[in-house]
Amino acid sequence: MTAERLFAALREISFDGVGITRECFTDTETQAMALIEAEAQRLGFATEWDDGANLWAVWPGTEPELPAVACGSHLDSVPQGGNFDGAAGVISALLAMAQLRAEGFVPRRSIRMLVLRGEESAFYGQAYLGSLALFGRLGAEDLSATNVTSGRTLAAAMGSVGIDAERVARGERLLDPARLACWLELHIEQGPVLIARDMPVAIVSGIRGNLRHRAVQCLGEAGHSGAVPRWLRHDAFFAVADLITRLDRHWRTLLERGRDLVITSGIVGTDPAEHAMARIPGKLSFSLDIRSQSPETLEAFYDLFLSECEGIAQERGVRFIPGRRVDAAPATMDPGLMEVLRSQLRAMGQPDEPIPSGAGHDAAVFAHAGVPSAMIFVRNANGSHNPREAMEMSDFHVGVEVLRRALRELAA
Amino acid sequence: MTAERLFAALREISFDGVGITRECFTDTETQAMALIEAEAQRLGFATEWDDGANLWAVWPGTEPELPAVACGSHLDSVPQGGNFDGAAGVISALLAMAQLRAEGFVPRRSIRMLVLRGEESAFYGQAYLGSLALFGRLGAEDLSATNVTSGRTLAAAMGSVGIDAERVARGERLLDPARLACWLELHIEQGPVLIARDMPVAIVSGIRGNLRHRAVQCLGEAGHSGAVPRWLRHDAFFAVADLITRLDRHWRTLLERGRDLVITSGIVGTDPAEHAMARIPGKLSFSLDIRSQSPETLEAFYDLFLSECEGIAQERGVRFIPGRRVDAAPATMDPGLMEVLRSQLRAMGQPDEPIPSGAGHDAAVFAHAGVPSAMIFVRNANGSHNPREAMEMSDFHVGVEVLRRALRELAA
Repeated sequence: MTAERLFAALREISFDGVGITRECFTDTETQAMALIEAEAQRLGFATEWDDGANLWAVWPGTEPELPAVACGSHLDSVPQGGNFDGAAGVISALLAMAQLRAEGFVPRRSIRMLVLRGEESAFYGQAYLGSLALFGRLGAEDLSATNVTSGRTLAAAMGSVGIDAERVARGERLLDPARLACWLELHIEQGPVLIARDMPVAIVSGIRGNLRHRAVQCLGEAGHSGAVPRWLRHDAFFAVADLITRLDRHWRTLLERGRDLVITSGIVGTDPAEHAMARIPGKLSFSLDIRSQSPETLEAFYDLFLSECEGIAQERGVRFIPGRRVDAAPATMDPGLMEVLRSQLRAMGQPDEPIPSGAGHDAAVFAHAGVPSAMIFVRNANGSHNPREAMEMSDFHVGVEVLRRALRELAA
Repeated sequence: MTAERLFAALREISFDGVGITRECFTDTETQAMALIEAEAQRLGFATEWDDGANLWAVWPGTEPELPAVACGSHLDSVPQGGNFDGAAGVISALLAMAQLRAEGFVPRRSIRMLVLRGEESAFYGQAYLGSLALFGRLGAEDLSATNVTSGRTLAAAMGSVGIDAERVARGERLLDPARLACWLELHIEQGPVLIARDMPVAIVSGIRGNLRHRAVQCLGEAGHSGAVPRWLRHDAFFAVADLITRLDRHWRTLLERGRDLVITSGIVGTDPAEHAMARIPGKLSFSLDIRSQSPETLEAFYDLFLSECEGIAQERGVRFIPGRRVDAAPATMDPGLMEVLRSQLRAMGQPDEPIPSGAGHDAAVFAHAGVPSAMIFVRNANGSHNPREAMEMSDFHVGVEVLRRALRELAA
């Protein structure tokens, strides 16, 4: 068995002409999982499907009543995505288990590999559907979400792969977190940090939470671009530029003080119905996405945002209307597990400095459910969620080796 | 004759259900001009139509061979505009001449009131069509411009009101500027300065020219909003916000040093085809409109713009692509004429501090043709080019009085 062959087989069943599409809770996803199941069985592991229609490959330990060491990731993808996002975590887990078995290792704790469904939010607007369902964290409202293309409800999609959506809607727990000693997830990095730092892999320090506003409105006063002097202007764009520049300065200062923080305003624009080159913009709308591993930093920065809005409103005679705030809590990785992983890296002569995860992962759901969790990032060029994502197999095998060593230590 | 009656009559023939529409080179415009012609004749003035199909009311002086004192404005409007933009200059000129005649004044120089067509750019994308045609400043390319609604060419529209478009296309002069001693134009202010300063009228110091870019592109690099740290970002919006904030600071500094300047970026936005709340914007486009009475200030500020673009490009790893620069030269008002007007204001006990015109006017075309020109602004609430423009009749009559006194002095 080689990793290349498995990645190629997954690609073959899910190439859409441009990239990879393995839509959650569909036959394609199931087919990809069945491919992994066959490989696991060929390697001598028992397999089973849980009530969330997720796949497990099981290597019973000599003390099977102990909480198991769990590892894995998801197999679904965004539309026209890449082949490694999720699948790398599944294949690395299978490889590590196979290597341990081949070298004659006998685990005391059971080792359980989990192949999850539905991690991506692309089709139903909500991420971690598979793991949230497992821990009883989805509700009726989530299940009534409709597919962006087909319009089918999530409940119907889940039903189509054999999940009892009623149980999920009731928030019933399909997996007892106490049965798991820990959760280890290898994943490609979805940013450029490992590339920039020339590190093949890194341990994840935490998964950033975020505060978001979809559309903050800045309201000023429209007017003739030539006829209104500066002292009589209430220019919405100049006000927002001022705000962004002040937030950028605060951001730099907080980074210098060692805080974890990223800020993005991805959508900004004047109103096409009324803007003109010779018209002072009376209205500007912009999105705001503030992320940090620390809830305190998120709140502190959010306070700075509100207070700068207030100051600029007074100085420039404009108004800011933030709209609805949406929160997602940060997830803490387990310090003991992180140290297990970092010590393997040091033993392998690799740098072990942890980096934060800006994107969300199933590991955050496991951590919130009380399962000690940790992640291994593998270097990846060109970002994620596009067909150009690029992982070197040599980097991937460094990640597999870290995982193999950690499983050996944790299951012993 | 009252001003109110004339404004009401004009409104009646050009109310469109929402505001005023007197489209240039159409029957509505001609009808409005005919209404003024009848009033001028009723007041005892001869009338004539020139080769640009503009209307003149003529009061011959005792030395008619001398260059005449000319005054007036335009009668066309933007779609759904206001009733005073242009018409106030025509009716004030007629009122001032009538009052001078009533009080027994005998002019040495002829006084010629001119009612122009086609000042607004709304229908053919080019302003001052009537006055540019008079001075042979339109060409074949201008005449091939098409009407934004009907698609008819400007040449056809001019032909429909009796203008020989061939002559205009050849750049033939239809009026010898040497026949005019000066041009006086009363107009509503199109900004809020007189309202803010509590002045009923003001003399115009000059008409701002401008430098424009329709769409400056800032190109950075897109990426995941959570996964790319600040040091690896090339955020196009943060770069543009930085640029606007720096330009705002330069603007304030130049104003403090007494320069005339206004800056507007009326159209700004990320690309809807690729923007997302969780995506660092890799591209942002914005318009730029820089206006000043001084060509030196325009160029100096433009240099600051280019140099800040360069600095930010280096600091933030982005690129600015300005696109085509479009220029419109400032117009200088005649200092002697301005003093004639200002001295009337002082004699009337009114403040006489001049203010710049940010919007363009036919007076700029007269000035560029070598005719000494000056303007009187009348206070106007709610901006222009909309039905809510608002001029108090008491303010208007202050303007008429300044014009009457100036005509008396200049034609004597």
